[in-house]
Amino acid sequence: MDITTTIGDMARAAKAAARSLATCSRPRKDAVLLDIARRLEAATARIQEANRRDLEAATGAGLSAAMLDRLTLSAKAIQGMADGVREVAALPDPVGAATGAWIRPNGLEVSRVRIPLGVIGIIYESRPNVTVDAAVLCLKSGNAVILRGGSEALQSNRCLTAIIQEALEAHGLPRAAVQAVPVADREAVQALLQQEDTIDLIIPRGGEGLIRFVVQASRIPVLKHYKGVCHVYVDAAADLSMAQDIVQNAKVQRPGVCNALETLLVHTAVAEAFLPPMARRLTAASVILRGCPETRHWLPEAQPATKADWEAEYLDLILSIKVVSDMDAALQHIARYGSRHTEAIITRDFTCARRFTREVDASVVLVNASTRFNDGGQLGLGAEIGISTSKLHAFGPMGLEELTTTKFVVLGDGQVREA
Amino acid sequence: MDITTTIGDMARAAKAAARSLATCSRPRKDAVLLDIARRLEAATARIQEANRRDLEAATGAGLSAAMLDRLTLSAKAIQGMADGVREVAALPDPVGAATGAWIRPNGLEVSRVRIPLGVIGIIYESRPNVTVDAAVLCLKSGNAVILRGGSEALQSNRCLTAIIQEALEAHGLPRAAVQAVPVADREAVQALLQQEDTIDLIIPRGGEGLIRFVVQASRIPVLKHYKGVCHVYVDAAADLSMAQDIVQNAKVQRPGVCNALETLLVHTAVAEAFLPPMARRLTAASVILRGCPETRHWLPEAQPATKADWEAEYLDLILSIKVVSDMDAALQHIARYGSRHTEAIITRDFTCARRFTREVDASVVLVNASTRFNDGGQLGLGAEIGISTSKLHAFGPMGLEELTTTKFVVLGDGQVREA
Repeated sequence: MDITTTIGDMARAAKAAARSLATCSRPRKDAVLLDIARRLEAATARIQEANRRDLEAATGAGLSAAMLDRLTLSAKAIQGMADGVREVAALPDPVGAATGAWIRPNGLEVSRVRIPLGVIGIIYESRPNVTVDAAVLCLKSGNAVILRGGSEALQSNRCLTAIIQEALEAHGLPRAAVQAVPVADREAVQALLQQEDTIDLIIPRGGEGLIRFVVQASRIPVLKHYKGVCHVYVDAAADLSMAQDIVQNAKVQRPGVCNALETLLVHTAVAEAFLPPMARRLTAASVILRGCPETRHWLPEAQPATKADWEAEYLDLILSIKVVSDMDAALQHIARYGSRHTEAIITRDFTCARRFTREVDASVVLVNASTRFNDGGQLGLGAEIGISTSKLHAFGPMGLEELTTTKFVVLGDGQVREA
Repeated sequence: MDITTTIGDMARAAKAAARSLATCSRPRKDAVLLDIARRLEAATARIQEANRRDLEAATGAGLSAAMLDRLTLSAKAIQGMADGVREVAALPDPVGAATGAWIRPNGLEVSRVRIPLGVIGIIYESRPNVTVDAAVLCLKSGNAVILRGGSEALQSNRCLTAIIQEALEAHGLPRAAVQAVPVADREAVQALLQQEDTIDLIIPRGGEGLIRFVVQASRIPVLKHYKGVCHVYVDAAADLSMAQDIVQNAKVQRPGVCNALETLLVHTAVAEAFLPPMARRLTAASVILRGCPETRHWLPEAQPATKADWEAEYLDLILSIKVVSDMDAALQHIARYGSRHTEAIITRDFTCARRFTREVDASVVLVNASTRFNDGGQLGLGAEIGISTSKLHAFGPMGLEELTTTKFVVLGDGQVREA
């Protein structure tokens, strides 16, 4: 059977399963989740056997050590997945909550009630733990999910999906609630992106190339972010010691993630006092510095920064630095080069803090805190299925609530419309 | 200059204007709106002169009388537009409201604050009053807008946009906050749909063909509904007199709109008592009836209904009728043929009402009320820019709040992330 037919059948089965999930009670959903956690622990050997086949193929194909590391499911990683599932089970169920209710002059009672989105398609790259994370977040929020992981994790993902399906079946829920695309070529992705009558949302997770491909090919709404070019602006009124700690954390603690700092903006009034000690600390942590002319006046060792640096998401131990004449210049730079992901100001000045939070167009705007806090767990959403820099539906980290929508329920006693 | 360059320039200007609008206070936005209303009234002759040129061209091109009627801006229609603008000015400003706020264990204060979406592109067909409606809803919610109306209303739309821009300029706001695409060909639409770096949302309003074209060509998120195949289910426990009034209203009061009734489902236990008197009333209002075999047993005059009838959005005085053996069959029919737009049950039975509102997947689900109430004004949103049957961002009527999103504002005193 060709892949387009297969994907169409999977999507229709998912839509049917979504009908059952939409009215599934919280205790039943949580019971399935806890069962999945138990089964993952019990199946450690089976998962590692499937993972070993992926690792062999990947080694044969010459994947880098870093890629192999991301692909590997150690016993500890499997325990981590099971623990993660239990954490999601403990979160509140977003489905059924009313977000508002009112009575119209004609007596109609109107409420808006949270419901699952329906069927979600997730397209991701190597790490197989995304399979379990994504599946349980979708299940908890009452959604069916179709997973399309990377080709290098095909056996691992199949095995993990099978374990989840066994738990679903044991609790009388349809196996089609969680399905994995059986092949990993682009044709399968293309076919998936055409199922607009059955799939409600596509979430791509991976590099910018994958995401641009998905956005261009999809007829289904896509929640995504391309990249995170995040700034910290050290204001004239900053506590410079706090600014050092925050910049160091934002750049160094985990440089390869989207909420890491990429460009540092420094008010000219504090450049002399702030930049040399900051540079010493960053350089000690192996960070390469690139700067504007004024930066290089204070830090002659820094390389010159070009326009490409202001646009870059390095995801690496590189930092571009620009000295700005005032807050307007900082806001202007962020408006031009920012990716609407995460922006922070360090200041003791109330007016500057207030202006920054109001005027900066980003999903998370922080005062006196590290950009690394743009994360569903860190901000208190309990979990995260991704971060959106589109403004539609969700802007910023997406938790369980962002996997739902609302419908209007209207109760009447015979009202008809006059005009 | 070619149209792609022009559209790119317009979109960049709109994005710059959106920055000013985002922090514009409510009194200032309302002052602009009230000024637009006054200017529309004062410019009645000028608007009608532009409209006359469109009407002459349309008459020459042989447009139908119905199309000419929709295109005509009478003095009364212009007064209606001005009144509509004043109504929007009186609505609350959605921007700036916090939708939630909490404190994290590490002391970070997190809030989610409503902000405008940014730049909205609206693609619509003939009626020029949409130009004013859409522009003021976008302005009130702090968004810049690019309008692309139908070719037959080009002069009218240009004139209305110029009047709005004059009001913006008089209040020191950028003219680029409201712009009209200067030509009306598909190439301009294509160019508009590629501006994903500057336009945040596309709303197409028109026939299914236009909307499918937009969804396929757009890299920008699209809020839309293709069609409304709306059902009323008359349950075994229905008040049959109430059911008659609601069915009559839902089908006959304004048959050409998306929330009109298209298929009537009747429980077999009440078919004999309900159908013949209902049919007499509908027939007296010139409604043509098409039915399933059991329907035709009670209404031999009805034509046989085919699968095409269950899928049809007639937008006309035609009604398809199906007798169902029980509520499961009604829910099954709606799940298969419904368009997730509007669905109603008529019943006195609490359990049936509750089950219907929970299980039916539609943007508005009603008990004992007409489908015609799926409308932003009728449900109390104050205004409406469209109805979405996509589940992303908005599901159902979209008012001012649906033209906003939320960003996270995080206030700290030096927090950094440990893991």
